Amino acid sequence: MLRLAAISIAVAALLPAQDQPDPELALRERAQAMIKEAMSSRNAHRILAGLVQAAPHRLAGSAGAEAAVAWAAAAMKRAGLENVRQEPVTVPRWVRGTECDVRIAGEDPPLAALALGGSVATSVGGIEAEVIEVLSFPALRALGDGARGKIVFLNRPFDTGLINTFTAYGGAVGQRSQGAIEAAKAGAVAVLVRSVTSEPDDVPHTGAMNYQEDVARIPAAAISVVAAERLHARLAAGAPVRARLRMNCATLDPVPSANVVGEIPGRSAPGEVVLLGAHLDAWDVGQGAHDDGAGCAHVLEAARLLLASGPRPRRTVRCVLFMNEENGLAGGKAYAERHAADLAHHVFAIETDSGGFSPRGFSVTGGRAVEDALGPAARLLGALDLGEIRPGGGGADISTLAPAGVPLAGMRTAQDRYFDLHHTVKDTLDTVHPRELSLGAATLAAFALSVAESEAPIPRTAEATK
Amino acid sequence: MLRLAAISIAVAALLPAQDQPDPELALRERAQAMIKEAMSSRNAHRILAGLVQAAPHRLAGSAGAEAAVAWAAAAMKRAGLENVRQEPVTVPRWVRGTECDVRIAGEDPPLAALALGGSVATSVGGIEAEVIEVLSFPALRALGDGARGKIVFLNRPFDTGLINTFTAYGGAVGQRSQGAIEAAKAGAVAVLVRSVTSEPDDVPHTGAMNYQEDVARIPAAAISVVAAERLHARLAAGAPVRARLRMNCATLDPVPSANVVGEIPGRSAPGEVVLLGAHLDAWDVGQGAHDDGAGCAHVLEAARLLLASGPRPRRTVRCVLFMNEENGLAGGKAYAERHAADLAHHVFAIETDSGGFSPRGFSVTGGRAVEDALGPAARLLGALDLGEIRPGGGGADISTLAPAGVPLAGMRTAQDRYFDLHHTVKDTLDTVHPRELSLGAATLAAFALSVAESEAPIPRTAEATK
Repeated sequence: MLRLAAISIAVAALLPAQDQPDPELALRERAQAMIKEAMSSRNAHRILAGLVQAAPHRLAGSAGAEAAVAWAAAAMKRAGLENVRQEPVTVPRWVRGTECDVRIAGEDPPLAALALGGSVATSVGGIEAEVIEVLSFPALRALGDGARGKIVFLNRPFDTGLINTFTAYGGAVGQRSQGAIEAAKAGAVAVLVRSVTSEPDDVPHTGAMNYQEDVARIPAAAISVVAAERLHARLAAGAPVRARLRMNCATLDPVPSANVVGEIPGRSAPGEVVLLGAHLDAWDVGQGAHDDGAGCAHVLEAARLLLASGPRPRRTVRCVLFMNEENGLAGGKAYAERHAADLAHHVFAIETDSGGFSPRGFSVTGGRAVEDALGPAARLLGALDLGEIRPGGGGADISTLAPAGVPLAGMRTAQDRYFDLHHTVKDTLDTVHPRELSLGAATLAAFALSVAESEAPIPRTAEATK
Repeated sequence: MLRLAAISIAVAALLPAQDQPDPELALRERAQAMIKEAMSSRNAHRILAGLVQAAPHRLAGSAGAEAAVAWAAAAMKRAGLENVRQEPVTVPRWVRGTECDVRIAGEDPPLAALALGGSVATSVGGIEAEVIEVLSFPALRALGDGARGKIVFLNRPFDTGLINTFTAYGGAVGQRSQGAIEAAKAGAVAVLVRSVTSEPDDVPHTGAMNYQEDVARIPAAAISVVAAERLHARLAAGAPVRARLRMNCATLDPVPSANVVGEIPGRSAPGEVVLLGAHLDAWDVGQGAHDDGAGCAHVLEAARLLLASGPRPRRTVRCVLFMNEENGLAGGKAYAERHAADLAHHVFAIETDSGGFSPRGFSVTGGRAVEDALGPAARLLGALDLGEIRPGGGGADISTLAPAGVPLAGMRTAQDRYFDLHHTVKDTLDTVHPRELSLGAATLAAFALSVAESEAPIPRTAEATK
C-alpha cells in the first residue's frame, strides 16, 4: 500500500498541472493574489473615503442616506457588478434636532450627552427632576414607587475585564435598548443611560432604543462615561441630585428609501445565491466609518477583487448594502419579504458589520453540518493566518433570512477598539487603517469565493440543527 | 467502560473542590483574575507613561538611557520585585547630531531623511554626487564600476502584499543593515535607503546599520517612502540626478550603562529562573513607546499582576530590562556572560519586543519537545482566546542565551500597524492603546506563570533539536 501510494504520488508529480486539479490550492493561490492586489492598491480605503465624502451622515430617512443610496449604486457599477438596482424599503425617520442639553441642575458644564435614536423630545422648557441611579432592571423594579416622577440613571458599566468586547457590549446594551421602557414602567419621567463603551472618556455613544405600545414614551439620552462618573459621584455624596434635560429630537413620517443590490452572475449555477451584505445607513453623529462604512467598502472591494482575479464563481455572488440596520432593520426585513420565494436558493449569506479592523475569520450560524461543509474555507483561512471559523454568528440584516434556513456568517475582526468609537463622533475615516480594511476585503472575497465555488452543497440551517 | 467513566465523573462532582486539584483550571482562573485587574486598572499604560515622561529619548549611551535605567530600577521596586539591581553593560555611543539634510541637488524641499544609527558624518560641506538606484545587492554588484563615486539609492520596497509584516520587514531590512557595506564595496560615496515600512508616508524610519572592518565607512541615511518615490521618479525621467547629503552624526567613546534586573523569588524552586525580558533603550527620534517601552510596561505590569494574584510561582521569575538592543545588543551579551555559569538553571526566557498591540500568543524556539511541554500554556491561551504557540521565535536580547540551550519565546502581537511607526517620530505614547497594552501584560503574566509553575521539566533547546 505504501509503495503504491508512493508510486501514485510520483506519477502525479510527472503529470502536467492541468491533470492535477487541487481546488484548495487553486483557491489559496487566487486568495493570495486578491490579498496582494487589495493591500498594494489600498482601494478599499478609497471606496470608504468616497462614501464618507458623499454621505458623511446617513441615518435612514435622511437626505444623507439617499445620497448614500445613489453613491452605492454608482460604486457597484464601478466595481463591475451587474443587475445593479435599488430595492424599495420604507424606513422610519427620526431627527436628532438641534439641542440635547443634559445637566446636573445648577451646574456647568453640562453632561456630555446624545439623545438615543428614536427618543421623544422633552417639552420645550425641558424636564427637571430628581435623579435615581440603578445598575440593573431588577434593581429598578425593586424600587417600587421609588423611581416615580424621577429621572432614572442606568449606570451599568461595560465590563472592561472581558477580552471579547462584543460580549461586554452585549452585557450592557440592554439598558440602552430597553431602558426607556423599564424606567417608564417604574413611573420615571426620563432616562439617562451610561454610554455602552470600552473607553472611559467624555464622548457619549448614541444608539437605538425602543418604546413599547402600552408604556409611556419618555425621553432617553446617553451620557459619556466621564459624565456618568460625575453624576454617580454627586449621588454618592448623599444629598438629592436633580438633573435637567432638554432635547428637541422628533420622529417624523416614514419615508421611502432602498437597499442597493448588485451581482456577479454565477458561472454555472447562476440561480444559487451567495449573499454578501453590509449596511449603508449609519448613526448621524460620526461618519459611520467603521459602522458600517467599512463593511460597505469590504463588500464592494471584495466584488472588484473577485472579478479581477479570475473566472466568475460558480454561484451568483449578490452584494446587498442594506438600509436602516441601525434603527429598525427595515432593509433586512424588506429583502427577506421581496425575495421570499427565492430564499430556498440563497445558499449562504455573509455580513460584515464589525468594523474595519484586521480580519480574524468568520462566525457561522447553521450548525455542525454547515461548519463541516466550510472545511475548505477554514483551511484557507488557517493557511493564510486570517483567523478561523467559529460557531454562532451572522449579522442583523441577514438575520431575517434565518427562518428560511439560510446559513449565515459574520466576518470577525480585531475587536479591541471597536466599542471605543461605535456610534460616536469618533467613528471617522482616519480611524480606519487602509491596510486592515484591505485585508478584510480580501478575506471576505476569499471566503465568499470558497463558498460560491464549492462543488459540494452547503446544508441548510434547518437540516443542520434539527 | 462508559458506565465506569460516568460513575467516576459523578463521584468527582460530589467531592469538595480541594479534592479535585486541576492545575490547568486553577491557572486559568488566576489568569482571568490577572486579565480583569490589568484591563480595569489600565496600569500598564501608566507605567509606560512614566517611562516616556522620565526618558522620552533613550538611545544607549545617552543621558536619556541613564534616566531610563534609574526609572526602571524604581519601577521594579514599585512593582514589588526583589533583588532589584543594575548589572553593568558597556554600550556604544552614537549621536545623531544636529543636521541631516538630504536633497536632490538644486531642489527644495529636502527629502525627508534620518541618518541611520551608527553612520559616519559627511564632510562639513556635505557630499554631492550622482545617484544610482538599485533594488538588490546582486543588482548592485552587477553594476561593476557603475556605482563608483556615486550615491547608491537602495529602493527595495517593503512587500505590502504580505499578511505578516514581520516577514515583509525581514525581506527589506537587509538594505538598511548591510547597505553601507555593499555600496562601499561597489565604490559608492554614500548610501540612501528607502525606509523599511508598511506605510507609504513622508516619515523616515531610522535603525541600525553596520560597517565592516576592511570596507570604507560611507554615510548612510534612510529616506521616507514619499521621498524614495520622488527620487525614483526623477531618475525614471532618464537624465542624471545628483543628490546632496550633509549629516553631522558621530560615534563617540563607549560609556557605562546597565541592564536592570529584579525578581520574584521562586516559592519552592528559587534556583530555577524563568526570564521575562524587554529592552529599555529606544531609537532617539520618537518615544520608543511601542519599541520597546510597551515591552518594558508588559514586563513590569506582569510582575505586579503575578504578585497581586496569588502565591509566588514555584520558580523564580526574573525580569530583565536590557540595554542597547537597538544598536549593539551589548545588554544581551553582557547578561549571557555575567550569568554564564547559571544559564543551565535558566529554564525558559521570554521576550516582548513586538509592540503594545493586542496579544496573539507566543512564538517559541526550542523544538517540538519544548512546544509539547508548553501544552498547558497553549491550552490556556486557546481557552482565553489570546492566540496560540507557534514555532520559531524569541527576541534579540535573549538570543544570547540560545547557545546555552535555554528555550526562548517571543510574545506575538497584532502586527498590522507596528512597522507604520517603528523607529520613527510617530512611535509615541498616544499610539499605544491602554486596553491592548494591559491585555498584553496579563497574557505575558499568564504564560510566565504557566511556565514558572509547571511541575514538569521544560526540555533544553539542545535536547529538543538534536
